[in-house]
Amino acid sequence: MAPTVDLNADMGESYGAWKMGDDAALLDIVTSANIACGFHAGDWDVMADTMQAAVARDVGIGAHPGFPDLHGFGRQRMKMATSSLQNLVRYQVGAAQAMAKAAGGAVRHLKLHGALANMASEDEAMARACYEAALSVAPDIIIMVLAGTAQQRAASTLGCPVACEIFADRAYNDDATLVDRSLPGAVIHDPDLAGKRMADMVREGAILTQNGKRIETRIDTICLHGDTPSAVRIAAEVRRALQDSGVALARFNGAPV
Amino acid sequence: MAPTVDLNADMGESYGAWKMGDDAALLDIVTSANIACGFHAGDWDVMADTMQAAVARDVGIGAHPGFPDLHGFGRQRMKMATSSLQNLVRYQVGAAQAMAKAAGGAVRHLKLHGALANMASEDEAMARACYEAALSVAPDIIIMVLAGTAQQRAASTLGCPVACEIFADRAYNDDATLVDRSLPGAVIHDPDLAGKRMADMVREGAILTQNGKRIETRIDTICLHGDTPSAVRIAAEVRRALQDSGVALARFNGAPV
Amino acid sequence: MAPTVDLNADMGESYGAWKMGDDAALLDIVTSANIACGFHAGDWDVMADTMQAAVARDVGIGAHPGFPDLHGFGRQRMKMATSSLQNLVRYQVGAAQAMAKAAGGAVRHLKLHGALANMASEDEAMARACYEAALSVAPDIIIMVLAGTAQQRAASTLGCPVACEIFADRAYNDDATLVDRSLPGAVIHDPDLAGKRMADMVREGAILTQNGKRIETRIDTICLHGDTPSAVRIAAEVRRALQDSGVALARFNGAPV
Amino acid sequence: MAPTVDLNADMGESYGAWKMGDDAALLDIVTSANIACGFHAGDWDVMADTMQAAVARDVGIGAHPGFPDLHGFGRQRMKMATSSLQNLVRYQVGAAQAMAKAAGGAVRHLKLHGALANMASEDEAMARACYEAALSVAPDIIIMVLAGTAQQRAASTLGCPVACEIFADRAYNDDATLVDRSLPGAVIHDPDLAGKRMADMVREGAILTQNGKRIETRIDTICLHGDTPSAVRIAAEVRRALQDSGVALARFNGAPV
Repeated sequence: MAPTVDLNADMGESYGAWKMGDDAALLDIVTSANIACGFHAGDWDVMADTMQAAVARDVGIGAHPGFPDLHGFGRQRMKMATSSLQNLVRYQVGAAQAMAKAAGGAVRHLKLHGALANMASEDEAMARACYEAALSVAPDIIIMVLAGTAQQRAASTLGCPVACEIFADRAYNDDATLVDRSLPGAVIHDPDLAGKRMADMVREGAILTQNGKRIETRIDTICLHGDTPSAVRIAAEVRRALQDSGVALARFNGAPV
Repeated sequence: MAPTVDLNADMGESYGAWKMGDDAALLDIVTSANIACGFHAGDWDVMADTMQAAVARDVGIGAHPGFPDLHGFGRQRMKMATSSLQNLVRYQVGAAQAMAKAAGGAVRHLKLHGALANMASEDEAMARACYEAALSVAPDIIIMVLAGTAQQRAASTLGCPVACEIFADRAYNDDATLVDRSLPGAVIHDPDLAGKRMADMVREGAILTQNGKRIETRIDTICLHGDTPSAVRIAAEVRRALQDSGVALARFNGAPV
Repeated sequence: MAPTVDLNADMGESYGAWKMGDDAALLDIVTSANIACGFHAGDWDVMADTMQAAVARDVGIGAHPGFPDLHGFGRQRMKMATSSLQNLVRYQVGAAQAMAKAAGGAVRHLKLHGALANMASEDEAMARACYEAALSVAPDIIIMVLAGTAQQRAASTLGCPVACEIFADRAYNDDATLVDRSLPGAVIHDPDLAGKRMADMVREGAILTQNGKRIETRIDTICLHGDTPSAVRIAAEVRRALQDSGVALARFNGAPV
Repeated sequence: MAPTVDLNADMGESYGAWKMGDDAALLDIVTSANIACGFHAGDWDVMADTMQAAVARDVGIGAHPGFPDLHGFGRQRMKMATSSLQNLVRYQVGAAQAMAKAAGGAVRHLKLHGALANMASEDEAMARACYEAALSVAPDIIIMVLAGTAQQRAASTLGCPVACEIFADRAYNDDATLVDRSLPGAVIHDPDLAGKRMADMVREGAILTQNGKRIETRIDTICLHGDTPSAVRIAAEVRRALQDSGVALARFNGAPV
């Protein structure tokens, strides 16, 4: 049986008069969409339009909450009380649920955004607080986690539905962290190489590091980028390369990890 | 059998470091709370705290959406496409649903805020658009309408659950509109008078105008104000005066109008 | 002596992670730049970058204040007390002055944005209030007005420095208002035609209406658009067409009108 | 000759419909006012009103810039590029200059707010970047610094006008930092004690620590709080106690440190 993987990307990141990304093109590539919830990006209309488009193409809808930092696009690390963090996640997930319902769909998964995600990948308690908050308002939501990080550990202790994610275009260190962007080879620009790497990792069920180490991990979804025209082109080619390698594309099923 | 009425007030209008109103005191007075949803006032933490307090006192939770106008407290009239208006309402209702669920409760009713409410009380199509949007994400939500206005007409055509509202402290014109605040007698400052008027109107099932005219209307709830210490005191005395007049206080049941 | 005119365009409309317009290209075309001040668009960094680029190319810097309406891009009409309107303008002009000074330049002119400009073009008292506010903090500022509107009348009563503006790409009615966008011929898409029209109007010192009527008016500057790649291309061609027609391009001098 | 000191407090921290602090009362107590600039608190109208009131009572006007963090009241630490930090300060100082000018006054000093101040008190390079930015748009501005911190060191290297500040209600450690709020005696609640301490320190020209150590430092101004009714009362009593101790109150003169 062919190895199967999901492809996800952030979208719905326009705001008011400002456009960002080519969501229409991305929706033809991915099987799951992480849709901004109006705090770091997105607004009520952008969410509605993006979710309608996702439903029309049978792409899975994810709530993609971020810090309340529109100017900084949610990339500013913020120190918050745990209860505030949980309220922040609940609010955004709830808004996403309503928009999805009105679009004829439903929120299927959660993916944290930007600094919120970065902090949660380092801090298991924080990750768990965010996931518990999401589960408290959407008990069946699938928690998308960065494979091998505190995010995955947090989700595994909760026994909740999970999707483990790797990056298509980033090299890995031997401890499963990403190679720093400033180092050579950190970012993979060749779509064929990226696609081949992904096919290998999915088939092996392991992250293959820059040094050739093999870190066993469940891989459910691959993160693609679509914020620039060239990113969209690369995403499309990664998809093709995966399919050429005999990997099937389908939404993750959310089995606990 | 004693005539029965609900008492409602706006709350959850603090924001970040800024406090507004004495919600704790108000929650001992009202039977339904209209809770701001983070656009004109309120934030994720204020919503959580207010909803938890409402659940603890068995006060009905209402979503109280407003225009995206924090600085103007939602009092600025905004011209929006119908679809945007609907997305705006859906987003806020959805956020409120999640916060209510996490607080152990549920959103029971909808009340529009500020300029959004004022425009909807004059424009039946706009009111209907807002209500349909709320019902699309919360099919059982009770729509609170200003008795005798386009709001009520909109809700009646939808056949949805409704609560008809009158004001405790405002005199009425013969067409059921409110006497302009600049005119003498427009605002009723005497709580005993306000309480007695309310008891009369509830018992008669009619708005009694400044000129003594009687406008038959269903009356389900009375709007109280609580944004100042004196407003809270008046609200408490209206409650007492109503009870002294033999009117029972209970949440509205939401029968269609 | 060759007729002379200024070319102006809005810029500095990016915000945080969101880019808008091709300011670098526009700065090679215009002689004056209307730079957003952070309320409807722009932020501290965008202002700094845009002003530095304007100074480097000797383009005149204008403060371009708008309503506090980031989501609506300042297109939402807002009702404000006159004193608030004046404070709003002063705040933005002051911020622009500081950013211009730090960039090695100075704010030379004022142009109102969006709904603020539209309202001021219909309401002479409102226009005057805005202009007085700007002059109270920048006594030598040149007030850019839409030729033939209440904006021009307001500025003329103040005896302040003025620049009268016409649109490159819009047809005019016989009362000097713009032909409604929904009507045929309202928007001129042919850059050669637009350039020729502008050259004619500048040479005649008059607005030439769609019906061929001639409305004498001082013309100091022509408004170009640059929010899309095609708009920038048209702007460049209008510039060329003007020069081919023997019209010289230079910043307006701000003589009172 | 009597020792002299300035009294300063933060004000202008209301926002839109939300009120904070009793600025009218505080303006009768202080000689310098740190006025929020619309980023962490304050808005165009609040700034105008507060500055007019300050001018009317001959209280020195200070620009009090903060991070772009309205919800968090500027208390969230934010990591910014130096150039962004400088643009942020310039923008707010410029806005304050315009509002002060329109109020018939002028910005006399700068005081950083909240997390921006905290970070600058630990990081001399960051403090210097902020101060250089303010001086680039207001060359005569007096830089208010926390005595004994990196803020003071930064200002001293710039040779600019300076005012050194101590806290009325906080105990000091032997390295001139504040005793952590969670420790006993960290916050001084007794106005007489606070007033006497302040008189002693001003007279000695030194910070007197909790352990009795004496850290020589120039003291130009004392920070009072006014965000609650009790804080205003304490501030008034500190003022009286200082005067009773023979300390004269007057605006700092801004001599370089």
